[in-house]
Parts: sequence; C-alpha cells; structure tokens
Amino acid sequence: MTQELSVVGKRLPYWAAQDKATGAAKYTADIKLPNLLVGRVLTSPHAHAVIKKIDKSAAEKLPGVEAVITWEDIPHKLFNPNIQDITLHMPQAVIKDAYIISEKARFVGDVIGAVAAVDEATAEQALGLIKVEYDILPAVFDMAEAMKPGAPLIHDFAKNNISMHMNFPVAWGNVQDGFQQADVSVEAAFQTSKQHTAQLEPLSCIAQFDASGRLTVWSPNQRFFIVRSKLAELFDIPEGRIRVISHHMGGGFGKMADMGAEPICVALAKKSGKPVKVQYSREEDLFGTWTREAYIESGKLGARKDGTLTALSMSILVHSGAYFNRSSATAIVTMGSFTGLYRCPNVAAEMTAVYTNIPCSGGSRGYGVPEAYYLLEQLVDMTAEKIGMDPMAMRMKNLKQLGDPGLVGLPLETPTQEKCIRLGAEKIGWQEKRSRKKEDGNIRRGIGMATYLDVSGGQPFDIQDRNIEIKINEDGSANLYIGISDMGQNLLGASAQIAAEVMGLRYEDIHIVYGDTDYCSFDAGTYANSGCYQIGNAVMKAAAEVKKLILERAAGKLGVTPDKLDIRDRRILVRDNPSKSVSIGEISKDCIYNHAGQHLNIFGKASFSPAQNPYPTGAVFADVEVNTETGGVKVARLLLVHDAGRLINPATVEGQLQGAMALGIGYTLFEDYYINPRTGVLESNNYNTYKLPSTLDLPELEVELVEEPTPSGPFGAKGVGMSGIMGIPAAIANAIYHACGVRIREMPITPERVLKALKEKVV
Amino acid sequence: MTQELSVVGKRLPYWAAQDKATGAAKYTADIKLPNLLVGRVLTSPHAHAVIKKIDKSAAEKLPGVEAVITWEDIPHKLFNPNIQDITLHMPQAVIKDAYIISEKARFVGDVIGAVAAVDEATAEQALGLIKVEYDILPAVFDMAEAMKPGAPLIHDFAKNNISMHMNFPVAWGNVQDGFQQADVSVEAAFQTSKQHTAQLEPLSCIAQFDASGRLTVWSPNQRFFIVRSKLAELFDIPEGRIRVISHHMGGGFGKMADMGAEPICVALAKKSGKPVKVQYSREEDLFGTWTREAYIESGKLGARKDGTLTALSMSILVHSGAYFNRSSATAIVTMGSFTGLYRCPNVAAEMTAVYTNIPCSGGSRGYGVPEAYYLLEQLVDMTAEKIGMDPMAMRMKNLKQLGDPGLVGLPLETPTQEKCIRLGAEKIGWQEKRSRKKEDGNIRRGIGMATYLDVSGGQPFDIQDRNIEIKINEDGSANLYIGISDMGQNLLGASAQIAAEVMGLRYEDIHIVYGDTDYCSFDAGTYANSGCYQIGNAVMKAAAEVKKLILERAAGKLGVTPDKLDIRDRRILVRDNPSKSVSIGEISKDCIYNHAGQHLNIFGKASFSPAQNPYPTGAVFADVEVNTETGGVKVARLLLVHDAGRLINPATVEGQLQGAMALGIGYTLFEDYYINPRTGVLESNNYNTYKLPSTLDLPELEVELVEEPTPSGPFGAKGVGMSGIMGIPAAIANAIYHACGVRIREMPITPERVLKALKEKVV
Repeated sequence: MTQELSVVGKRLPYWAAQDKATGAAKYTADIKLPNLLVGRVLTSPHAHAVIKKIDKSAAEKLPGVEAVITWEDIPHKLFNPNIQDITLHMPQAVIKDAYIISEKARFVGDVIGAVAAVDEATAEQALGLIKVEYDILPAVFDMAEAMKPGAPLIHDFAKNNISMHMNFPVAWGNVQDGFQQADVSVEAAFQTSKQHTAQLEPLSCIAQFDASGRLTVWSPNQRFFIVRSKLAELFDIPEGRIRVISHHMGGGFGKMADMGAEPICVALAKKSGKPVKVQYSREEDLFGTWTREAYIESGKLGARKDGTLTALSMSILVHSGAYFNRSSATAIVTMGSFTGLYRCPNVAAEMTAVYTNIPCSGGSRGYGVPEAYYLLEQLVDMTAEKIGMDPMAMRMKNLKQLGDPGLVGLPLETPTQEKCIRLGAEKIGWQEKRSRKKEDGNIRRGIGMATYLDVSGGQPFDIQDRNIEIKINEDGSANLYIGISDMGQNLLGASAQIAAEVMGLRYEDIHIVYGDTDYCSFDAGTYANSGCYQIGNAVMKAAAEVKKLILERAAGKLGVTPDKLDIRDRRILVRDNPSKSVSIGEISKDCIYNHAGQHLNIFGKASFSPAQNPYPTGAVFADVEVNTETGGVKVARLLLVHDAGRLINPATVEGQLQGAMALGIGYTLFEDYYINPRTGVLESNNYNTYKLPSTLDLPELEVELVEEPTPSGPFGAKGVGMSGIMGIPAAIANAIYHACGVRIREMPITPERVLKALKEKVV
Repeated sequence: MTQELSVVGKRLPYWAAQDKATGAAKYTADIKLPNLLVGRVLTSPHAHAVIKKIDKSAAEKLPGVEAVITWEDIPHKLFNPNIQDITLHMPQAVIKDAYIISEKARFVGDVIGAVAAVDEATAEQALGLIKVEYDILPAVFDMAEAMKPGAPLIHDFAKNNISMHMNFPVAWGNVQDGFQQADVSVEAAFQTSKQHTAQLEPLSCIAQFDASGRLTVWSPNQRFFIVRSKLAELFDIPEGRIRVISHHMGGGFGKMADMGAEPICVALAKKSGKPVKVQYSREEDLFGTWTREAYIESGKLGARKDGTLTALSMSILVHSGAYFNRSSATAIVTMGSFTGLYRCPNVAAEMTAVYTNIPCSGGSRGYGVPEAYYLLEQLVDMTAEKIGMDPMAMRMKNLKQLGDPGLVGLPLETPTQEKCIRLGAEKIGWQEKRSRKKEDGNIRRGIGMATYLDVSGGQPFDIQDRNIEIKINEDGSANLYIGISDMGQNLLGASAQIAAEVMGLRYEDIHIVYGDTDYCSFDAGTYANSGCYQIGNAVMKAAAEVKKLILERAAGKLGVTPDKLDIRDRRILVRDNPSKSVSIGEISKDCIYNHAGQHLNIFGKASFSPAQNPYPTGAVFADVEVNTETGGVKVARLLLVHDAGRLINPATVEGQLQGAMALGIGYTLFEDYYINPRTGVLESNNYNTYKLPSTLDLPELEVELVEEPTPSGPFGAKGVGMSGIMGIPAAIANAIYHACGVRIREMPITPERVLKALKEKVV
C-alpha cells in the first residue's frame, strides 16, 4: 500500500517548542520542591593525593547545614559512571574503578565530599569549613610519562597506569599479508583532543525520598532507566522503589548518557532526609564532568597502485584521565569505524587505555568516530597523493556496496555513499577547486573531503530495546508512552509524526508521556543515533497494532472487512466508497462506552529489538583558507551531503546535522581543553577561555540530503543525531593540506600549530 | 489449582496509610502551584429570582482580582452534573437542566457568579463588590405545594414542577392480580430525609491551562474520566487536550461520583489565564453541593396467610430540589431494590420527580437502597404482625435462591441470605429478645431486623468497564496502572493484594500508578460497590497475563514446560523439584537485558466488562431502647451479618461495613438537613447544627462475616462499600416499633417525632 504520506516528511514545529520558547518547559534548575536543599561538592585542589583526615564537624555545626558527607558516609562500592556497562554485551570491556566519593583524589576537581544546606551561601560556607589533611602524591599528566616504570600509580590494579589492552575483537584477514600485497603503504599518527561537551545545562540532579522511603530522582539523562538500575545497585534499593524522572535536558550530546551527580545527590538526600538539588557551576561542569576521549592514534594503510586497499591497521592510546569510564567502548567504536568504512580484506586494530591525573573522559557526540576518520581519511589522501590519484576517485574505488558488512558487521541496506560523494563534488565544484591556483597573498585556499559511515544505534554490541505503548482517548487522540527524555533533538516530535501517520491522526493529536520510569516501560536510552530508527520502529509497531484494532472495530460499524478500509485524517473510510466513513473518535467512544465491545480502551503495546543497523552515510567537503602569516584557518564553505534515509521531519534532520557540523568545526579548530602540564589544573575552565566557535567563526552550514528510504527503518528512516560531525575534522585537515601542504599532528588545529608546521615545512 | 493464598485474605496495612498518617499524602487543599489563584463563588440569597443585572466592574477593578465571571462569560450549555448521563444505558432517564452559572437562581445558594483573585481576602472582598439586581420570584419548598396548579414554575419545561414520571421498566407480573390473590395486604407511606454526605474534604478543584492550551484539572472525583468527557463537552476541548488528576480524596461516598466545582474552576482559569483553586467552605459544601434524595414513598404488600408474597407495588415522589441531577437513577435503584429483594410474582413501581426551590440532591452512599428497604422491610414486619407470624420466618419464606434474578435481573451466584439471617438471629438472641418483657420504667426495649441484597456495580444498566496495565520492573516488582482515585476505601490496597497473589509477589512489591487520565486507561469509576469486584477482576486478568509471560520465560530457563511451574514469594519454581527455581527479578532482567528475548519488558494489559453482578447480602439486627419520656432512641446493639464473598482484606471489609453502619444510624436517627420552610435557607449549615452521630452516640458496630466466595469474583470477592447502610434504617424502625408500637412516618427519627407518635398512639 503506497499511500501518500501526510504527516511524515513534513516540516512540522519542534515538539514542545512553544513550552521552550515561553519558559514553560521545566528544566532541573526550574524545579522547586518544599524544603529543597542545595547540594554542593567539595573537590580536591591536588591532582593526586590521599586524604589523611577530614574534619567535618565545623561544617556540620553551621546553622542551615543539613548534611555533610565524605567517603565514610556512603556506600563504599566500586562502580563506573558509564552506564553502558549494564547494557554492553562485553563484560571484558568493563572496569569499575570509581567510588561515589573517593578517599584518594586522582585529579584536580575530584570529589572528596559534599554538603547539603538550606541555601547556596550556607552550602558554600560549609564547604570552606571542612578541614582536609592531604598526603600529596606525585602526579602525572602525560600518557607517555604515565606508562614509564616508576611513574606514580593512579589505581593500584593498573600496572604502569595501563588499565586495559584490547585487540579489536572483530578484525579479519591478515594485515601482514595485506601490507605485503600493497604497492604503497602510508603511516601516520595524530593526537586528538579532549573536547568538552558544551551543553547549555550544567550537570544537575534532584533526589527526594518520600515518606515510605521510595526514592524519586530528577535526572536529565539520556539513559535514565539505566541510571535507575545503577542507583539500585549502589544504594541497595530495588528498582521498583526508585522513580527516575527525566524530562527536558539542556543538551545531551552523548555526555548525558553517563551517570552524573545522581549518586552524590541521593547520598545527600539520604543523609539529610530532605530533597536535595545538586547543580554544577560552569567551572565544575568543565573540570568535573567528562570530555571526549583524547587519543594518540597511529595507523597504516596499504593499497595497490590503482587505489585498491589491501590492509588497514591502527593502534590507539586512549587517554582515560583519572578514571576509566567508557574508554573501552569509545575505542571499540573507533576501531570499528577505522576498519569498517571501506572494503578492505585485511584489517586489525588495538587499543591501550592509560590513566593520568587529569579530568575524566566519557561520552560525547559521535564518540570514537570522527577520531577514526581523522586518521583514516588523512591516510587515504596521503596514499592518493603518493600514487598520483584523485583522493575522491580512490575513495570511490573502495566503497562498501549493498549487503557488505558495515561498521558493526551488519549488512548495508542502501549503498548511497557514492551518490553522496558525486552530488557533493558537483555542488562544491570539486574538480575545478582541486586544480585551482591556491595562492592569494598570505591566503592559501584548499579543498578537502571525507566520507563516513555512521550507525543507527549500538546494536548488536549494546542493548537497544524499546517498549512503546499507545492509548486512544475518547476524542480519538492518542497518548504515546515513550521511556526517553527530551534532549532537544525533536525525537518526540518525530515519534509523534510516525504515530500520527500510521494511525491516520494529525501531529497535534499525539500527546506524549515520556521521561518517567513510573509511567513508561523500559527503554535503553537514546544515544548512538538510535532514537529515530529504534524508537521510530517501536512506535510504528505499536501504532500499527492500534490501527488494526481501530479498523476491526470500524469494519463492524461500516459493514465491510478491515482490508477494505483506509485510515486518514482522523477518519476510517471505505476505500471504494469514501463517503462511508466513521471518525476515530467515534470508534474510540464506541469501544469505551458500548457495552458489548471487546476492546474497552484501544491500546497498543510493542517491543522492538533491532535486527539490522542501517548506516547513515555521506560525504563532507571543506573549502578552507589558511593565512600563512597568522596560521589562522577559515572554513569558507562546509558542505555535507548526507543520506539519513526517509526524512521524518526534514527541518529536524537539517538542524541535527548543522549542529553537529558546528561542533565538528569547534572540535577541529577551536576547542582547547587546556590543562596546565605542571599542576594538572584545567585552565580553560569557562567559556571565556574554552573557546567555542561563535556564529562569526562559522561558514554557512550547507546540507544536502539524499533521501533513500532504508528497508528496515520506520518509513525508511535511519539515525541522524551524530552524523554531522563524523567527517568534519578529516575534511578540514585534508583541505588544509591541500591549501598549504602541512598536516597538523595535534588537535585542535590552532593558528600556533599551523604556523609551527608551516615553519617546519619551509625548513 | 487450589493453592493456599498468601496475600489475599490477609489483614495488611491500608494502602498509603503511612502517607496519610504523616501528611505526605497531598489532597487538593495541599497542592501548591506558582501563581495559583483563589476562586470563590457568589451565591444567591434568594430561593427563586431572576437576575436582572449584574455589575461586576467594581470587583474587576479591585487590585488582585484576576477574573470575575457570570453566566455571560461562560459556555451557555445545558448540562447535568450527574455524570452518569454519559454512562447510563437509559437516555430517557437523563435531563439536562443546569448551566455552569445560571441567570436564574433556583435555591438559596445557587451559584450566580465567581471570582478568582490572588488571595482569599481579595476574593471575598471582590464578591462583595459585585452588584446584583434581582427580580425576586415566589418560591416553593414543599413537593405537594410545588405540584399544585399555579405554583411558581422552577424550570419552564416542567409543568407543575414535575420533571419526570417513570414506570419501573423491568416490572413483571400483574400487581392487581397479585393483590387479589393475597390473603392480607398492607400499605404504608414514609418520608425519607435529605442526608448530607458529610465527607471530610469539602468540594475542591484546581484548573490550569498550560502554555499550549492543554488543560489540567485536579479533581477529587470517583469518576474522573467521565469528568474529563463532561468538561470536554462543556468547553469544546477534545478529551486528549485535558488531563484530569484525581489522587487522594477526603471521602467519596457516591457524592464525588458527580461533577462538582470543576466547570466553574475551569471557567475561572480560562478567563484569568492562571491556575485557580476553588475550595468550598463547610457551609458552602452543605448548602451548595448535593444530598441524598428525599422521598415520599408509599408501598403496598400482598401476601398469603403463610407469608408468601403475592404482590409488591411502590410509588415514589422524588424531591429533586432545584435541579434534576440523578433523580431518575436514584429512583430506578429504589424501585429495583424494592421489587427485587424477595421472590414475588407480581411487582410494579413508579416514580415522579418534583422540583422545588431547595438545594439539590445527588449521589450518596448506597443511594436509593436503604430508602427502598425502609419501606419494604417495615411492610414485611407489618404484614407478619397481621398474619401472626415471626417477621424473620416470613422473610425466610420469600428469600431468593440460587439462580433467581436479583436486584438487577442477573442471577444470584451464592444464596447466602438465609445463612446470614440464621447466624445473626443466633448471635443477637432473636427468639429470646422478640419475646422478652419490654418495659423498664420509661425505657422500652425492642429488637428489629432487616435483610438486604446489594450490588457489585451498576451493570447491566450502567457502563462498568475497566482497563488495567501491569509493568514488571527490573527487580521483579510491579507497577500497577489503575484509572481510579483513592477515596480512602483501600481499593488500591485490595488491588495490590490481588495482583501480588496472582503474580507470586509480596504486597509491598506492587507500586500503584492511579488517578490520572494521562497515565491510566479509561475506567468507569468506582461507585455502586463496583471497585473490588470489577477492578479486582481486571487486575486479576492483567496479572494472569503477566504471570503467563513470566512462566513462559522461566520455563525456558528451567528447562521444563510452563505447566510444571509454580510462582510464589517472588520466585518461579518447578513444582516437583522446588530446588530448581529462578526469581521474578531475574526473569524480568533477563527479558529486558537479554537481547534474544521476545518480551522486552514484561507487560500485561486487560480489559474487564462484567457479565455478572453478584449480590452482597446480609441481615441487620438492631436492639434499641426507646425513652418514652424524652422520645430518645438509643441503639444498644447493632449487628450486621454480611456476605461479601471472599475477603481480600478482612480489615478493609470490616472498616467499610462499620463506616456505613455509622452512616446508617446517622441517617436514621440524627441527621436533619433543616431548611427553613418560609425562606428556603438551610439552617443546619454546619456541623454544630447538622448533627452527625459521635462515637458516644454509637453502639459497638458488630460485624460478622459469612465468607462464601462468589464464582465470578476475583478470588470470589464481591463489592462491599455501601452494603453496611442498606438495612439499618429499616432494622432500627422495626426495633422501635417492637419496643413501643409506633412507626415514625418521617425521617430522621428524632425524639420529637417519637414523642409525637407515642402521644398520637395513646390518643
């Protein structure tokens, strides 16, 4: 039945846009509760120190202070704030190395205590009254130093500060043979940077125990069902005695897929017996949460003279910082992306994770993937240059085709990479610009590209299961129950569009109940581009179940069999005689109020567990200008050609891609998470020093969409949230090389580094 | 499978008892919202008056006043606050005669305007600033006067103030023949009284429109889904755009099954653009809400000499007061109860509803039934006396038997009336006390009895459909979704016991989500004893579905077929080898986290529409002392022998019965809703003048339970909420007659009336 779509594909308003515009949407900071205390954390000023003694008596005596906690007051259980450890099908990838509050500080900013008081000023004063005696230890901030024998040991179990070494478990072929078969081989190494996820809302949480001891936690988190399980484990409270509410979130960006202030907040609420809100300052959020993982990544590419790949290998040093968090997951994603983008018969990769005394790493948008392509796509360009081939042509030679295993092993459903590349090359004027004269005073112009595959979720490595319920109201409108939070990516809007399309309703007929463990069924959370593909599929299934019930009931009313019916714009009509019709509201009322009925309230429930993982794909083209006098790089044009499958809401897809493109430019050129190499202190600890690109720093973010519905997607949609960043760093780096002949080994590509490279090249 | 019950049948703590004891339970009065306004109503001081002009300008100008409304500001639609009109399968029984705010006052206290202001004092002041010009009309307060030609007409459509006349639609036989076949016939007429439902929480409501225009209403109401539909109709807002929240309620008692302050509250919220709370004062609640319907009821009973009934007929004048409300439903219940209690071949009944200018009538606990038995059971005693038979023996002769149609036509499942009567007679010492010497100075002692049948819901006349969902949490505990409010009758506790029993969980493992149209599916509401029987059955069905899923999954784990398994105390075990077992939590976690599973979140949904209506039944025995000098009546003993089927929680059943017995004593002897016959003003307008029995006025409320599981009930349970009142007035009246030989024609049986009757008797 190829019926024209009436809701899906439309540029409808973002879900809850009005609430956000008017301030009616309540973020954690906006939530008021009676007797709500202010929680604040005490952090270590030392990068590495054992706490000999903490005297909290003065703080406790301060009027208005309701709780002071240190490591002695709370469950002493090792855990990992990366909540993927519960859902990842790789127990070997999990390290639990953190306590809610440690008795040993491992970085400047490590939490060593917390207070809850009646107001901010009292809490602040109380922090100052906690007397801590430290035994200061030597610290190490550099991975190479940390791995040397005799380096200060940060965690007892990790010899030479190496927490984990892993060979990529799904490698194939034999890389030694592959490199032998190669006509050329190229090697390179890069140091990627520790990008901070500059979400608007700093880490926030509220915890409250009710009279019966049941715990409610307001947690802006992308995986709040898993947060519930983690808290259950940490505090020995069964899941059913915990309710987690996660509504609006001031940006998730993968960061909010890890657990944040929840355990400390719960511990304070438990000790004080009152509700507590913990909200980090911007500085605390910068040094005290977690960033994109920094790598030293080295790789080798082997190819025949015609550009055909024969071998790919990579080795990553993962800079975990003080705690392991998701170092393994990130590295696995990087290794999968590096080895999986192109057809190549022999691939291998390995990772080593290293502790130092710097702030932690964790989830961030597209974690692991732009890092992989930064290395791979520069290697491709370097190889193409070596064999005298157009780098675009070399890419074309090695693209994956229909049915080929993609990044995660599952087959490509729609091989649209070539289409994206061709369209982009045409739009940007690739041929012309590759060969243009590059000089213009101090300005060197260059063009570069990169291609990418992305995922629609973490399957099959990670649990990505969804449960959706739909209830039809008396007026025919629907309540849609989705166990996710709203991180601003309009997934709820897309879900409403899908539900409305299937059930023949209008967008505004869908009321969404979400973000609450009490009212929604288990959901694995939205991350890794999983939302639209997986939630969308589950919504589609549940809506189809509802539609079936509606049609069955309507068939009885209209005197035909259900297969003779269509459902459209709130009505069910006889296909061959559309004047015979009945509204969904009438059917719903009939079910509810007509005694003889079997469906007393039309209700659909569906679970969805993905068997496929369609790959969003595309190509990025960067047109840059390098100022050889200042080292400054200006991105003059940035064009992304992307296939996200069917576009449920084109405006949302464009917005997601453009946001990620801006993030990619910041990551590549601007954002320098600068840690003082002597003290371990984060010096770029607010937005005056941690430089995010402003609109003036950004070109127009050009997006072209190749809309090829993917067979397993809801109406053909794939994931999209992270895709926009994937190829940006590599494309810009390749363009810079094209402009001025240098490759910058360390990110971000600041003017200082460009100048230095230019000088070294001249010499 | 007759497995021993481990949760059902236990005296477990009332649901939410701790929250209520600690004050954590939030009633409407406790709810705070930002910018919440105080709404107050302006009521008419005249019993009958047309409003010529209202000048609200001064009120509107008062600082702090946010809305002033009169009939001109709100939807001018006729409606009926009795929400049964939506669910009753009898369109002919519905009269819509009210407006949210009328332009004609029909009783002292009729709402003619309302204000919303920043605080109580300002709202109060604003009421005083509204200038109303009335055109005062002659008023009528007495039914007989109202029906006379030339009486003031209260509603234009109702000639002689008669709104409805109805012959009982399910009468049978021919009463004229029946009375001809009778050896004796007896006639009597009584005037029943207008009992006020003295619920602790006065009428309350909050209404709020959100930024998108969606309406949320906090409405303590027994049928809040129907409130939603009524509001949708009144304000032209689709149901899906309205959320009704109905959590704790300070007593429902059938009264809260009608709509209260909601429309006015919504109208104020709409006009002011801010949330508004309307909470009636105690006085407003007494005159401005609704009471038990007052009747003039006359009946005739024909019997053979051996006590066998040959005919029963009754005629009721229903005193509606100013508006019709549920006058028809109440009368139908009365007619059904009068004609349905005993086997009798010829029955007929009729009702006439009459308007006067007094406050309204409406739902109240057991409405219509004690009124019916008050007449019938006195007629039986009078007949027994006439034919020289023990009144208990005469009752025995005419009891309904297994399969006989009961009150609502559906067959008796368990004929336990005889058992209840015999047990009661033995416990109270019937034979001895009927024949004891009755005089003791001024004190005359007497014993009387009555029997009754009650219902387990309003089916088949009324919609009684239920929808239940159950979700299993990761720890094996369950969320139980029930679309009802908590009116304090512990139905949620009973539901939790049923759910826990079926699923092999503990009582404390059941977390209930209730009272919210957003989170629960349609429910018809709890009234007419429907809760335990219908909700209980629906819960049982949903829990059985969940159990099936759990057993299927466990069977795979334990390597047996599901039929080999038992489920008990949070575990599933192999029946023949109980050492092989797995916990429900493990199964739940497995379903959620084991990728290959089909049930990704164990979830059960069930609808229940009752095909049966088992009759709770019993007998009441009252042992009274009448003081012939003062006319005072003291109930020395009151014994209720009752069969509620299986007792889910015996403590709850006893509590329900005892509460209703106290209500019955108040109704019979104390509660005088006194309206000044010249002015129409309610003079007993607070609890100092409207006398409720205190503990000192009450005997020990003796309850004996005959526990006979009924086949169609959940674990054999029937309804129970109203049953305790049914036979009380009749039993006390019969005991008074036995004590001193008078029958009091008018309720309540006050000392004045007893004295008057005694004097008339002597003369």
